[in-house]
Order: sequence, then C-alpha cells, then structure tokens
Amino acid sequence: MVFSRVMRAVDLIVKKRNGGELDEDEIRFLVNGYVSGEIPDYQVSAWLMAVYFSGMSGAESGVLTRAMIESGSTFDLSSLPGPLIDKHSTGGVGDKVSLILAPVAAACGLQVPMMSGRALGHTGGTLDKLESINGYSTKMGNDRFCEVISACGYAMTGQSKEIVPADRLLYALRDVTGTVESVPLITASIMSKKFAEGAESLVFDVKTGSGAFMKSVEDSTRLAESLISTGKSLGRGVVAVITRMEQPLGYMVGNFLEVAESAWCLKPSLAPDGFRYPNDLMEVTLRLTGWMLVAGGLASSVDEAEEKCRSVIEDGTAYERFLQNVELQGGDPGELESQLTSRRAPCARTVAAPRDGYVEAIDAFSVGMIGVNLGVGRNTPEDEVLADVGVELSVKVGDEVDAGDPLCVVYSESDAGADEAAKTIRAAYTIGENPVDQMPVIVRELSSL
Amino acid sequence: MVFSRVMRAVDLIVKKRNGGELDEDEIRFLVNGYVSGEIPDYQVSAWLMAVYFSGMSGAESGVLTRAMIESGSTFDLSSLPGPLIDKHSTGGVGDKVSLILAPVAAACGLQVPMMSGRALGHTGGTLDKLESINGYSTKMGNDRFCEVISACGYAMTGQSKEIVPADRLLYALRDVTGTVESVPLITASIMSKKFAEGAESLVFDVKTGSGAFMKSVEDSTRLAESLISTGKSLGRGVVAVITRMEQPLGYMVGNFLEVAESAWCLKPSLAPDGFRYPNDLMEVTLRLTGWMLVAGGLASSVDEAEEKCRSVIEDGTAYERFLQNVELQGGDPGELESQLTSRRAPCARTVAAPRDGYVEAIDAFSVGMIGVNLGVGRNTPEDEVLADVGVELSVKVGDEVDAGDPLCVVYSESDAGADEAAKTIRAAYTIGENPVDQMPVIVRELSSL
Repeated sequence: MVFSRVMRAVDLIVKKRNGGELDEDEIRFLVNGYVSGEIPDYQVSAWLMAVYFSGMSGAESGVLTRAMIESGSTFDLSSLPGPLIDKHSTGGVGDKVSLILAPVAAACGLQVPMMSGRALGHTGGTLDKLESINGYSTKMGNDRFCEVISACGYAMTGQSKEIVPADRLLYALRDVTGTVESVPLITASIMSKKFAEGAESLVFDVKTGSGAFMKSVEDSTRLAESLISTGKSLGRGVVAVITRMEQPLGYMVGNFLEVAESAWCLKPSLAPDGFRYPNDLMEVTLRLTGWMLVAGGLASSVDEAEEKCRSVIEDGTAYERFLQNVELQGGDPGELESQLTSRRAPCARTVAAPRDGYVEAIDAFSVGMIGVNLGVGRNTPEDEVLADVGVELSVKVGDEVDAGDPLCVVYSESDAGADEAAKTIRAAYTIGENPVDQMPVIVRELSSL
Repeated sequence: MVFSRVMRAVDLIVKKRNGGELDEDEIRFLVNGYVSGEIPDYQVSAWLMAVYFSGMSGAESGVLTRAMIESGSTFDLSSLPGPLIDKHSTGGVGDKVSLILAPVAAACGLQVPMMSGRALGHTGGTLDKLESINGYSTKMGNDRFCEVISACGYAMTGQSKEIVPADRLLYALRDVTGTVESVPLITASIMSKKFAEGAESLVFDVKTGSGAFMKSVEDSTRLAESLISTGKSLGRGVVAVITRMEQPLGYMVGNFLEVAESAWCLKPSLAPDGFRYPNDLMEVTLRLTGWMLVAGGLASSVDEAEEKCRSVIEDGTAYERFLQNVELQGGDPGELESQLTSRRAPCARTVAAPRDGYVEAIDAFSVGMIGVNLGVGRNTPEDEVLADVGVELSVKVGDEVDAGDPLCVVYSESDAGADEAAKTIRAAYTIGENPVDQMPVIVRELSSL
C-alpha cells in the first residue's frame, strides 16, 4: 500500500525560499490551485517573493510557462503552413521595428502572427501606431487573423482575454506585491503569451539602457539568458538580441510619425528631400528579421538572412506586403501614402541647439515622457492616444551641430503643449565639445537555435 | 501648499525587498493596516517574505515590536514596585529552569511576572509542568496576577488573548506562508508579548543544538544579537545567554517529574537517596537568575548575583517562596511534598546499557519526541498532556557505564507505551570507547545592560 504525500502550498513556498527547485507537479499544483481559487493569494504572493529572491532554473520557468499556457485557451493557427515566427520587444522609445520587420519577414516567406501591445509608461505601442492609419483595425478573431496572414504573410492584433488567464491573475498580484521585477516571472509571463498565441519560434529584442525597462546590460543579459534557457526547456527556438536604448530609435517618436518613418524605410524612394536614413533602427530591424528567417529555416546564417531582407526592400516586395496588410486590416493605401509627409499635428516648434558642439546624448526616457505628455502614450489607462503628435529628431548622438541648428521639431495639438514640450526637451540633449564615439546598437546576441 | 505623498503598501514591500530600512510611520502603517483589515494578507505575506530575505535593522524590529505591542491591550503591573524582570527560553528538552529561577529570583528581591507557554513540538511547556501539581492553576486575571506577585514575588500564568493581536494575526500568516524562520520576525513576536506583559527587562535563554529550534551557534547568535539590538532600540535592558541543548537539561523529562527535580534543586535535603544534582541545569538556572538580578539592579556583577542565588537556596527561602506560590495558585504544598518521590505513571521500564563505554551523546530531540509520544507534550493542539509520564535519565553525557547499567527509566500510562519508548530510546544514546570531553553548557552571553 502506497500513501501519497499530501502536497501543501506552504511546503513548496519553503522549498523555493530555501533555494530548492520545484518539479513539474509542484509548479502545476501552485498555478492550477491559484487559478481555481484553491490556493489563496497570500500564499501565492509569498511564493512569488521567494521566487524573486531565489530565482528559478530554466526547467522551472519552462514548466511555469507551460502550466500558464495550459491555464486557458490558445490561438489555433493550424491552418497556416508556417513557418510561424514572432518577435517581441521589451519596449523602447521610437521603436517601430515591428512595422518594418513584419512585411520584410513576410516578403521573405515567413508567416508572422504578430500580437502586440499598447503604449506603456514612456514607451509607445505598436497597436497605437498602426491605428493612427485611418481605418486600420487591429481587432479580429482567430479566423480572420489566419486569413490576413494567409493573404499577405502577416497580421497585427492585440492580445485576447481568453489567452493565459494565469498570467492575468499572477500579473495583477505581482503588481501589488512588489514582485514584478523578477526575471523568471517576466520570462514566463512573456513566453506563455507568445507561445499561446501560436508562434513556433520567437525572436526577442531585449532593450538595455536609460530608455529601457532594464537599465543595465547585466540585467538585460539575465533576462536574455532566462528567455533562452526557458525556450530550451520548452523545446522551442528562441533568440534574444540585446540592443541599446539610450537615445530614441530612428528619428521619429509618435504614432503616425513612426508609420511614416517605417514606410520610408520600406521604400526610401518615397521619402521627402532631406530624409535621413535611420541606421540604428534599420540595423536592429534587419538583425531581428534575419534571426527570424534563421529560426524559420529560410536562411542558414544571419548574414545571409539580412541580405535577403535587403533585397525584398530593394525590389519593393516588402513595401507591397505593407500596403496589402494596410488594406486587409481596413486602411486605404492611397490615402496613407498621400499623408506620410504632410499629416502632422498643427502646433509645431523647432528646438534649436544652444551652442556649437557634438550631440553626446539624447535621453530616450525624457523624450518618451515628453511624447506621453503630447499624447503619444497614456498617463492613465483610460487616456486616448493622439495620432499626429510627437517628436521628430533632426540630429542623433554623434552629430555635430552649430548654435541655432535644429535639434528636433515637436508636434502638438495645442500651442501650450507645443511650448511646454519644446521647453522641456532641451534638457534631454547633452551637447559637448568633443567628437563622440558611438556605441554599437547591438550589444549581444543569444540563441537556442 | 504641501501635498503629502500617499503611503502605499506595495511601495513599502519594494523598499524592503530592495534592502531598504522602513521608518516608524511605514512599519506602523503596515501593522495597523493589517490589524484593521485595510491592508490585505497577500501584501503582508509578500512583505514578510521580503523581510525573511532582506532582514531588519535593530531600529526596525524595535519599531515593529512597539507597533505590535500597541495593537492590543497590555498588562497593568503598575501596582507592583518592581523591579519586574522576566525570563524567556526558546525551548528545550528537560528545561525546567523557570520553575527554579522564579522562586530564587523572588527570594532575592525581584518581582517576576512570568508568562509561559505550553508544550510545543518536541519541547515541554512550563504551564503543563506546573499544572501537574494537583490543584495548581495558571489561569488568572490581571489583578490576581499582581496579588500573587506581591505575596510571594512571582506568579506563573499563560498569555492573554487580548495581548498583541498583531502577533496572533502575523504568526498565523507566517505559519502558512513559509516566513516563520525569520530572526527579526521571531524577535518582534517574542519581545512584543513579553513587554506587553509588563516586564521592564528580559533575560533570554537562547538554546542551541540538535534539541533546540536553532540548531547552530551561528543561528542562535543571530537571534541573540537581534534580541539585544531590538532591546536597545526599545530602551529596555535585555540579556541573551546562549546555552547548549544537545542532551536533555538535568535528569528529568516529563511534567511532574520535572516539578520533582525542581523542588529537589531548590531544597536538596528533600531529595531521595541516590539523587544526582543536575549540574548543567543549575549552571544555566543560576546564570540566568544572576543576570535577572543584575538587570534589576540587585547585584553589580553576575558572579555576585549567583552568590546571592546560592545563599537563598541554602537558607531555604527560595524553596519557601516556591511552596508559597504553589499554595497561592491553588496547590497543596504538603500533598506535593509527599508525592515528589513516589508519583509516577504505573508502567516503568529500565533501559540498560548494551555495552561498556562512555556516554558520548543523548539526543535531546529524540528524547523529547519519545516524551511527546508518552504524553509529556502534544502531537496535535487538541491533545491532553499526561502529568506522570516521562523519562528519568540515569546517566548524562561523559558518564562511564558498564553493560547492563541503567541508562534511563521510562514511565508510561500503558505497558505498550512503555515498551515502545524503552525500545526506541536506545537509539538516542551513543556509547563510545573513549572518555568524552564535555562541552560547556553556557556558550555565549550578550547584554544590552
């Protein structure tokens, strides 16, 4: 006769507190017990804090991710032949990578089921940017999502409420118990949603620096390593590219402003006179897209993959996919093209360099917060974002300026807002006497492929 | 115009999680908010786990102790002139120190408001031991408690439910969230109860070793240091004596058995032929009582104080106080004296040494658990303890034995219980070939006096 030991939440909390590794049954017991209401929140929060301090192995966060995925329904993308590869960014300022990456990857032959978020804190949101295109809708069901992907190679939508209920419950509890900033918990939260949404492999853009949620390369590396080891334990291909987020990515910070910059990157011949090609943005975009092709088996090296990406931009097929997608999701490609250069909020102010010198820094966090105040993002979850406001940088770090040269133009819906933004944005710029060595935008790449 | 920042529990959790020190307002906010129900248990448990990992300064645990004391009513001992000094032990096996210490301290001129506990785990309880005296009651109100102390110098009671409700709530939460074993939380729990009960200064017996809750000298030292620093921050005199708990203290483990040994220590002339004076027990007792006299200003050194203690034992006044207390709390001193040697549970078994040698170890934890199974303590909180059962050691560590010599006698209410105990207690003894160096029973002494 065999007696099974009764599993008790308190014993699992103590085990984790003492640095032990929980097994699959134990983690499922906690996750399922919490979702079903059998394990009270005061035990779950104590366990979360123990995880914060004691960490988790890759196997543990893999099991946690799987248990979370299985707590709810998953997206059914089985009608698509694939390869289905998605990208996720931890969030930055001026980060319009998804808008360029998705059509490029689709033009290269991937299917991209992209589920994005909205503006959060000082960072913009891909959904908010796309919805600045008149008529463009990111709301659609499972079937329509598959149809759009079949037709143009990618579709852009938000997260479904039915996906990963365990993440919604755990995130709400973490938010009020000081347990948000735990690498394995962040990992399981991100990966459970992404894999529940049907991706086969994932490429992560882990931002690092003053404009990112992870401020140090060490912290970003810890998250990247956790994503990789969790991917391995799930048997999924995962790539994490750590990229620098000290100054805004590219030149545009806004919703429609970033759509315009993305369109010009996809088809530089469309761009107006004086368009400056955003090298940092495109370096990050091509590398991430390249990794997606490698993950999907469409290239054997990132260099080869990047070449493919450049060729679908040069031959116009990536831009075609972009216009196709705009039309499929409710926008008017012709109207969009006609607005790219001209559609700006009415109150514009040009901010001039106060002295001769070299641009040493443009603080992305400050620019992001000024953007939020202009209406790019939200101060409270109820706020509506504004489509046409934002900041257009005239220079980037390393550029030489003379006193009086434009540093940027701010666009606001009100004169008062424009004056305020123009005044405060000066402090985001550091102008020094000496030429500046630029830091590489790609810091490190990790892969489980 | 000054805006006060709204205090939020989550910010205090994060502050502690990040190793910060909470101030008085912040700790009171958490404790009072929890007691009033305004702060939910899931935030308090996350904070407790953060305290487990990040610790607390002496100032913090002092404030926590004070906030907990003020969460409920306190004992009013203002009618007593004092000095009011109490002793607390972290719990051991055969630990009848309180029964001897209280009358000795009272005979030396202290007033001892002693609030004790019941058997817990493998350790016995002072209240259970005293209640093995026919008629002896430890239940009394504030006024009667003061009367008994006035009359004989000490009184023995349990903890009132009105005292420190914050400790009852926090302890219940800690018990199910893996946050019991936190030194500052243990400190605040012990000290809040002891000071709410009216003591002016406290002497702690911090047990260390296999028979104690703290197994290592390092852990015991951490607790002792925390008690001292918290006492300092409360402006109260605190002494912590770390004493070894590897073998049972003295020769008797049981309820009435320990009353008998205590009475004989107070008046050795009463003891039967063959009585072995328990040197380890009396060394601990005299040192702790000595520190109480020093804390109360009745002696200028522990050596001088110990001399005083010995003299009130030798001249019979300590034993007189003991009998006075027994009578005041409902017992019959004459009946008690007549039972000391003879009142034992009916089923006795003598356990013999299996070989010649030296007693190297008598595992206190095993002896304690065998005692619990005999009925000295409780397996569940509902169990009734038995007065006359237990273990009488015939030898202690360091003694030389011949094969067949008695190691101990077990007393049980049933033959089966006696057989079982006699069988299992053999494994608690280690008998080796070589003479044994005894470890000093007093390991370290710390004082804030």
